[in-house]
Amino acid sequence: MTTEDTQTKPGDSYVQSFARGLAVIRAFDAARPEQTLTEVASATGLTRAGARRILLTLQTLGYVEADGRLFRLTPKILELGFAYLTSMPFWNLADPVMEQLSEQIHESCSAAVLDRTEIVYVLRVPTRKIMTINLSIGSRLPAYCTSMGRVLLSALDDAALDETLAQSGIRAHTPRTITDLGELKAAIAQVRQQGWAVVDQELEVGLMSLSAPIRNRRGQIIAAMNISGNAQRHTAKQMVKEFLEPLQQAAQTVSELVARRG
Amino acid sequence: MTTEDTQTKPGDSYVQSFARGLAVIRAFDAARPEQTLTEVASATGLTRAGARRILLTLQTLGYVEADGRLFRLTPKILELGFAYLTSMPFWNLADPVMEQLSEQIHESCSAAVLDRTEIVYVLRVPTRKIMTINLSIGSRLPAYCTSMGRVLLSALDDAALDETLAQSGIRAHTPRTITDLGELKAAIAQVRQQGWAVVDQELEVGLMSLSAPIRNRRGQIIAAMNISGNAQRHTAKQMVKEFLEPLQQAAQTVSELVARRG
Repeated sequence: MTTEDTQTKPGDSYVQSFARGLAVIRAFDAARPEQTLTEVASATGLTRAGARRILLTLQTLGYVEADGRLFRLTPKILELGFAYLTSMPFWNLADPVMEQLSEQIHESCSAAVLDRTEIVYVLRVPTRKIMTINLSIGSRLPAYCTSMGRVLLSALDDAALDETLAQSGIRAHTPRTITDLGELKAAIAQVRQQGWAVVDQELEVGLMSLSAPIRNRRGQIIAAMNISGNAQRHTAKQMVKEFLEPLQQAAQTVSELVARRG
Repeated sequence: MTTEDTQTKPGDSYVQSFARGLAVIRAFDAARPEQTLTEVASATGLTRAGARRILLTLQTLGYVEADGRLFRLTPKILELGFAYLTSMPFWNLADPVMEQLSEQIHESCSAAVLDRTEIVYVLRVPTRKIMTINLSIGSRLPAYCTSMGRVLLSALDDAALDETLAQSGIRAHTPRTITDLGELKAAIAQVRQQGWAVVDQELEVGLMSLSAPIRNRRGQIIAAMNISGNAQRHTAKQMVKEFLEPLQQAAQTVSELVARRG
């Protein structure tokens, strides 16, 4: 134990050292795929000595490799995210169902889970249309103005919903975004009652989305599945008329598979 | 997993605590998505006190959530893998090129990188055929008997190649797997010379694959791109005749995009 570690409570130093290790991993991205020790220190706010210790730790564990003075992440990092994805009961079950749905309707189909105020994509089946939506596994969007978000928020009790909406930083992404809290809660109550959500260009002009819940054996909503569309090709009404039934059937199929396995 | 992650450099408490945290993350999977403290302790070989400290650390940092006595991972874990994927210079560039290739040839198309003796999938564009190949991002296959593996191994110098093959646990996955070391090195030398690899049912009966390298500006191989096919639809010869040119063109396009950006 170094002085840095012994100055704080054991629990705190433990959390801190782990948090710093993860912060170093997250310091690497498209803009900075390879970094020197000095760059890592400056990106994470660590001292050079602290950054060196963490980089060598990550290197020892196989999560970072060095090429001369440059450090970069190794693919071993993916095992961590893979542990999460495969730990979701619906993940393997949903993929073939969603591929079939996307094939049938010729639109992109995705699944997401809620993480506080945001939805996180966990599956995505792109369509072959030229204008596809570039959202990959792990990417995040605000829950309050997306159809999967409204389905997932509809599963919260009133207190949790109020708290989540209060922390959501609600703003008008487009002229159509519902930003009035009362109106938003009414929209979510309607989703809870009808069991699906449609959102018409509230996140981005031209982008529409229709969602239904995936439930576990106890009937709890564990994820949302959506079909996304283009406002130039459909109105919201047409989307619901054309796609709601196949979407609900696919979500129901996945829910039944989850229940059978769980 | 536990031996590798928790027994590295005993005595270095910093490395050890970080390794243990990661081992706890990796203890969750499809078979054990939700676990009690006792189950986590038993899966990782930690004491109950040690497991509790790490679970609380992960919970404080938002990577684990508790539901009564059960702990599970949160989607925040995905950010770590996402940091890795977006740190690869070719990742965003390759996706549209591979989608176009897969569309053109009606077969699945993937990209992988080398991690010691294994290839790790970093991109995958599935085709719509009923019999598709279920390999997702982050999954691993042995390098020595896969076409992407042979392309990636062909980039190693002789000493590194010998060392990697020696650690590969070479065995006959099918009657066609090349297991003779001399024969395998000759096959890899041929891949190095011709700049592409075809592997005909050496990993699994019925599965064929054709690969070409993605290079950086300095001409170094940084990834491999493949087209996979079904032995019932093509012979290896037909695959090469039909798909080698479009595959090489796509790999070349990605390499040029990488060079232009790098």
